[in-house]
Order: sequence, then C-alpha cells, then structure tokens
Amino acid sequence: MTDASKVRASGTIGVTGAKGFRAGAAAAGIKKKRGALDVAVLVCDTEASAAAVFTTNRVTGAPVQVSRRHLAARSAMRAVVASSGNSNVCTGAQGLADAEEMTRLAAEGLGCPVEAVLVASTGVIGRLLPMEKVRAGLPKALASLGRGRAADAALARAIMTTDMRPKQAGVRLRIGARTVTIGGATKGVGMIEPRMATTLGFLTTDAAVEHSALQAMLRRAADATYNCLTVDGHQSTSDTLVLLASGEAMAGCDPIAEGSAEAAKFESALVAVCENLARQIVADAEGGTKVIEVRVTGAASDEEAARAARAIANSPLVKCAFFGEDPNWGRITSAAGGAGISSGADSMRLAIGGVLIFEKGTPVEAKAAKVKRAMKARDIIVRLDLGAGRGEARVLTCDLSYDYVKINASYTT
Amino acid sequence: MTDASKVRASGTIGVTGAKGFRAGAAAAGIKKKRGALDVAVLVCDTEASAAAVFTTNRVTGAPVQVSRRHLAARSAMRAVVASSGNSNVCTGAQGLADAEEMTRLAAEGLGCPVEAVLVASTGVIGRLLPMEKVRAGLPKALASLGRGRAADAALARAIMTTDMRPKQAGVRLRIGARTVTIGGATKGVGMIEPRMATTLGFLTTDAAVEHSALQAMLRRAADATYNCLTVDGHQSTSDTLVLLASGEAMAGCDPIAEGSAEAAKFESALVAVCENLARQIVADAEGGTKVIEVRVTGAASDEEAARAARAIANSPLVKCAFFGEDPNWGRITSAAGGAGISSGADSMRLAIGGVLIFEKGTPVEAKAAKVKRAMKARDIIVRLDLGAGRGEARVLTCDLSYDYVKINASYTT
Repeated sequence: MTDASKVRASGTIGVTGAKGFRAGAAAAGIKKKRGALDVAVLVCDTEASAAAVFTTNRVTGAPVQVSRRHLAARSAMRAVVASSGNSNVCTGAQGLADAEEMTRLAAEGLGCPVEAVLVASTGVIGRLLPMEKVRAGLPKALASLGRGRAADAALARAIMTTDMRPKQAGVRLRIGARTVTIGGATKGVGMIEPRMATTLGFLTTDAAVEHSALQAMLRRAADATYNCLTVDGHQSTSDTLVLLASGEAMAGCDPIAEGSAEAAKFESALVAVCENLARQIVADAEGGTKVIEVRVTGAASDEEAARAARAIANSPLVKCAFFGEDPNWGRITSAAGGAGISSGADSMRLAIGGVLIFEKGTPVEAKAAKVKRAMKARDIIVRLDLGAGRGEARVLTCDLSYDYVKINASYTT
Repeated sequence: MTDASKVRASGTIGVTGAKGFRAGAAAAGIKKKRGALDVAVLVCDTEASAAAVFTTNRVTGAPVQVSRRHLAARSAMRAVVASSGNSNVCTGAQGLADAEEMTRLAAEGLGCPVEAVLVASTGVIGRLLPMEKVRAGLPKALASLGRGRAADAALARAIMTTDMRPKQAGVRLRIGARTVTIGGATKGVGMIEPRMATTLGFLTTDAAVEHSALQAMLRRAADATYNCLTVDGHQSTSDTLVLLASGEAMAGCDPIAEGSAEAAKFESALVAVCENLARQIVADAEGGTKVIEVRVTGAASDEEAARAARAIANSPLVKCAFFGEDPNWGRITSAAGGAGISSGADSMRLAIGGVLIFEKGTPVEAKAAKVKRAMKARDIIVRLDLGAGRGEARVLTCDLSYDYVKINASYTT
C-alpha cells in the first residue's frame, strides 16, 4: 500500500499545468468516427529529463520499440507524439518504419533531433498505420500546440480508444521556496492488466529532478498504482508511461536528489497523480459499473498476496457476481485458493464492503442480505485475510457486464 | 497431444454400461427447481478397485476432504454418493460432519464400511447442506438403483448444476478374449479450469486393472483431457474424478498390468472417454456458443506452450471476439506475448480455422474476411506457432457471451 492518500490529486490539472509544456491534437481520420481527435503531440519548450516504463509483453508495438531505442540514445526529450485508433503492433518492418516516421515528422516540425521524440500508439492490433492520414494530421496537431485547459483536454481526448471519458490529474506542491506542478493524462479501458509497466500515460512536471531519481520514482509509482490495475487480465502490447521534467519552476535550484526529503515529498505527489489516473481507468473500464479494490493481507509473502488478489480480480465469476450485486462470496475464497497460496479456507477471513461474511472456515450467519446491500455501492473494498503471515497486496478492478461483451464482440468489424 | 483420436467414445454408454455397476438418483429438494434430481448414488455390486484425482485448489470442499481420507484408508470402494445444488465448501466443521453423514447413510443402506463410500457435492459455495432434505432423499436414491439407460441418465442429470445437457460417454474394447467396457458421466459448465485434477466425473469399468496402474492411467488421462479445459479460468474447489473397476468382465484373467500392451490399449480407451466427456463440458459451457481448441507449438518448452495456450484461452478479449465472430486476431498474439514466453511477434505464425493470418511479424494481407468466415464455425482450431522450439500444448475453451454474464450475475439470488 502507498501513502498516496496524504496528497490529493486534482482532475483540473493536465499535462500543460507544469511550466514549459504545450499540447496539441488533430483529427487525422485514423479513428472511424468523423472528426474524432486521434493524433496528439506533447512538447517541452526546452529539453526535458525523461523517465519511462513500458510493457513487459513479449509482443510489443513498433512505437514501444522505437521509444525504447530513442531513450537508450539520450535521456533528454523534447516531445511525445501519439496516435489512437491503431496501435501499430504486429506490423513488422513497415510498422517500425511508420513509427520512426512519426517521430521524424514531429522532430522536423520542432527543429530537434529525431531521437528527442518519443512515440506511442493505441488501438487495434495487426493493421498498418494509414500513414497518408498521419502525415496530413501531424502538422495540424503541431500547429495547434498551446497551454491551458483546452490544450490539456485535446491531448487527453486524442489518446482515447473505447474510453468514455478523458482522464487527467495533477498536483501542486512546495519544493523549498518554489511551487512545482505534476500534471498527467492517461487512457485505457480494456486490455488492461499492466505488469511492470502500464497503459498509455503522459506525465509532466516543472520540477528539476536528478535523472536517476526521476526514473526510480516513476518505476515505484507505476508499481504502486498502475501495476495494481486489472480490467480483464489481458496485458497490452503498447503500455507506455512517460514522465517529462522541464525544471522550469526550479531554475537556479539544485535538482531534487534521490533520498532527500524533497524527493520523498515529490514521490508522494507523483504517486497521488498516478493513483488518481489509475482509478480513472478502472472507473471508466469497458462495461464496468463498479470499482472494486481487492486487499489481501495475512499472506505468507507479498508475492502470494499479489497472486491471490490478482486471481480474485481477474475471475469472471467474481466480476459477474459484483455486476449482479449477488453476494456469492465463495467465488472470492475459491479464486484465492486456486492461486497457489499456502493457506486454506480454515484460516481465511473475508469482508465485503466492511461486512464480515466468512471467518475461520465458517460463514458468518445471516450476513448475506447485508453483503448484498454493501454490493450496491459503486466503490467496494474486498478484504481477504489469509491468516498465514504478513504479506499483503492490493488490486483495483471492475465488474464484468453485458456491455463488456458487447464492446469486445465487435471491436474491429 | 494424445492419441485418443484412435478410439471413438460413444455417448450412449453411461456409468452402468460396465458390468457390476448400478446407479440411482432422487429429487431431495436441494436445488430450487421442484422435482430436479439432486442426489445420486453409484454402486458397485462387489468391491471395486478405485482411482481418483481431486482439485489442487487450497480451498477444498468437505466432500473432497472426506473422500481423500477414505481413499487413504482403503483402495477398494463400494459406492460414490453425490449431491448437486450446494457444494458443501467453506462450511467448516459442520460441513465435514455433513459429508461424513452422507457416506454413512449410503454405507448403512448398502451394508458396507463407511470408508468404502466416496462423496462429491457441487453447487453454491458457503452454505450448509440442508441435511434433513439429504436424509430424506438419499434412501430414495438407493431404492431407485438400477442398470441401463434410465439409470445412467438419472445419475448424469442428478450431478448437473447450470449444465444444459447431461454428459456421458463410454467405449467397449477387447482385452485378450474378453470385451470390457469403460463408462462415465460428468458435469460442469462454469468455474471450470481444472488443474492437476478435474470437475466432477464418475468413470466405471468392468476390466480388472492393477490398482497402481489404474491410478497412474487415470492421472495421465486427466492431464491429457480434463486438465486441458478452461471455461473461465476459475479453478473449482470440488473437482473430483473417480474411476471404479469392478473386474467383472475379466473374471479368471490376470489384471491388466502397467507397461503391458493391454494397459496401453485400455489407457487409449480411457483417454477417449475422458476426452469425449471433457469436450461435452466445453460444448455446454455457461453461455458458450463455440468450442475453441487452442494449439500452441514451437514453444521453448511444453510449460511455456501451456502458459501461452492458457493465456489465450482465458483472455476475455479473445473469447468475446470469438463470440462476435470478429477477426481481431491481435488479441491472440498479444495474450501469448503477455504469458511469460521467450519469443516475440517476429517468430510467430498464427492460423485460425485453417486460415493463415499472421506470419513472421507481419499480417498476411487480405485474409480478415476469410478468417471471419472461419470464425462462424461452431468448432474452431487456433494454431499458434511460437517459432522458438519444440514445446507444445493444447487447451479447450469456449467463447464469452452475454449469457455467461447473465448466468453468473445472479447465481445465488
């Protein structure tokens, strides 16, 4: 668990909330829907210190491969170019050339080295990008670059796929005598089970942070938030979380160093932003009607707790029961039992929405109606103690509804 | 893969097809539906050599615990008593006492030791069995014991939960100069991901088989068939597969010994029956409209192939695409990529229903329409070659439809 609760992120601060950043977007026609924004650019006026984490899926998109290569060449970045409606995954050599071309087009427009541009795409897998549309749309996105709410919203909208709502969050905090900002936008409502990485997320800050500290803090923040999400247990091929630091709010100050009090404060704020964005993903999950936080404690190890929490959160039986508000809690204990844990039912303790329903191998009498009432909430916490040790984990997930099936039975056709 | 295809199992042979067995069932009122059969007894006229495999879930039902204890005490069994509508899982000490009582009631009716009776229950988790109903129903099931189609069908129906169809299969084969029979019945359409064991399945044979060979063959047959199934990736707490051998068709013959030609022949037949029963489970899966066989080859190891096949078969995105007959094949390659495999997209080769759609990192042009047509079939084979080695695995699964959500959103209420 994190101490992110100490810091509250705000949904009104987006990627240009931090000094030094501009965003732009255009409708290039990659998405079927006419006029839908589908190309975006996030630009730093100066070179930003860049940290990033990517999917650990062995099938990776061309944009992930190109971005990794650029980050290996340099740690300072000027821009991220993104597109939605087509993920440019499983597209071979042509796909790599297309992703490279996207970075080149942006670099030419900005007058910077091609390696100073990262790229991210999201959408259907296995189709070549319609590059004539991208070539026409990208200059329009560059021409629209600006700051403020409209620019933030345009970028957040341009990275959406089946998302119903744009997702952004930010915080302001004091570092020494200066006020610094962290802003961010994210997307994703299906094919969501980030592991060691995340879905698309773009974070900006005007703090100055030592590069190694920036990368380490982003990795930990992703592990504590995005990597605790699952919508459908299907890891994406395109997961990309980028944090760009312009340093503009801390001109003349020493950059934040790892292990310092400022670093701890900055990391808490970063986690708060990531947690807020991650919750927005689950709240907008494909077909989802509820946000369910599964907290497993008392496991023999943190790994065991994580396995159990993930098995519960990914069980379609558990998810359907929450959708139907059906107090079928045996699905929770049995999902944990099948996850390779060391304890059995006799040591378990289960509470749903604060109602204790199972303890020491035996149902707590006459609580089904109370559990059913607790399941009517939109946000529900499931607490399962395995009674074996001190390991713990949490996973954020959603329920499984008719609409998930509807959305995913006809995604490409 | 198995050579089960050599032997064809028949759906007209049930548990009393083998000499020496009788079956009976009664409507005890455990199930909500009035008059639905929900208590069953399978009896061997003499002591049968018994082999069994059980769930590896750490949360196990009281019936599994009692059956394991009885099998530890003796290897010869007279009967299996079963109930449906309530699985007697997560029911503590009272649940254990209730499962024991079921075996005692059957033993008293048959005049045999209580340890010579196995017990299996299936249904909702976390509720005490209504024992007054079981006490009234079990004698009726014993009174109805008989042989032939009606008896076979009664047992197959009495173990159903959300199953739409009763499931049975059997074969006849020659062992030396004798004709022996293997018959079986099974159930299960949800909470199906057997691992190292299976859902409920009762098999009988009138062959005489050495006990150690019987157990080894059942274990291998379960691994090759039942353990390749997944409906929803949720392992049951009650999985039980029992094989009882009466020996009546081989009186005066030496029992079949492990490693003999007869053993190989018998095992092929056993696998054919198990494969037939396993396929019936997937064909009747909750809400399922298609049977999908995922065959992964070219993996670095069999374990890697099994992980990839299971990730594909359990992905709700893949399953929804099959339901919608949407040729969204990138979900298949990305599911494999997220399963901890060693190869990437560039070495993969994917065919759906015999149509090659992806090869060496690049989509095979203009095949989407042909794949879409192939997806209209009720039985579809997905072949994914990872291009890394010689490991292989297969998993049988179904699609994910609105009806799966409907059935599971309101199971207990």
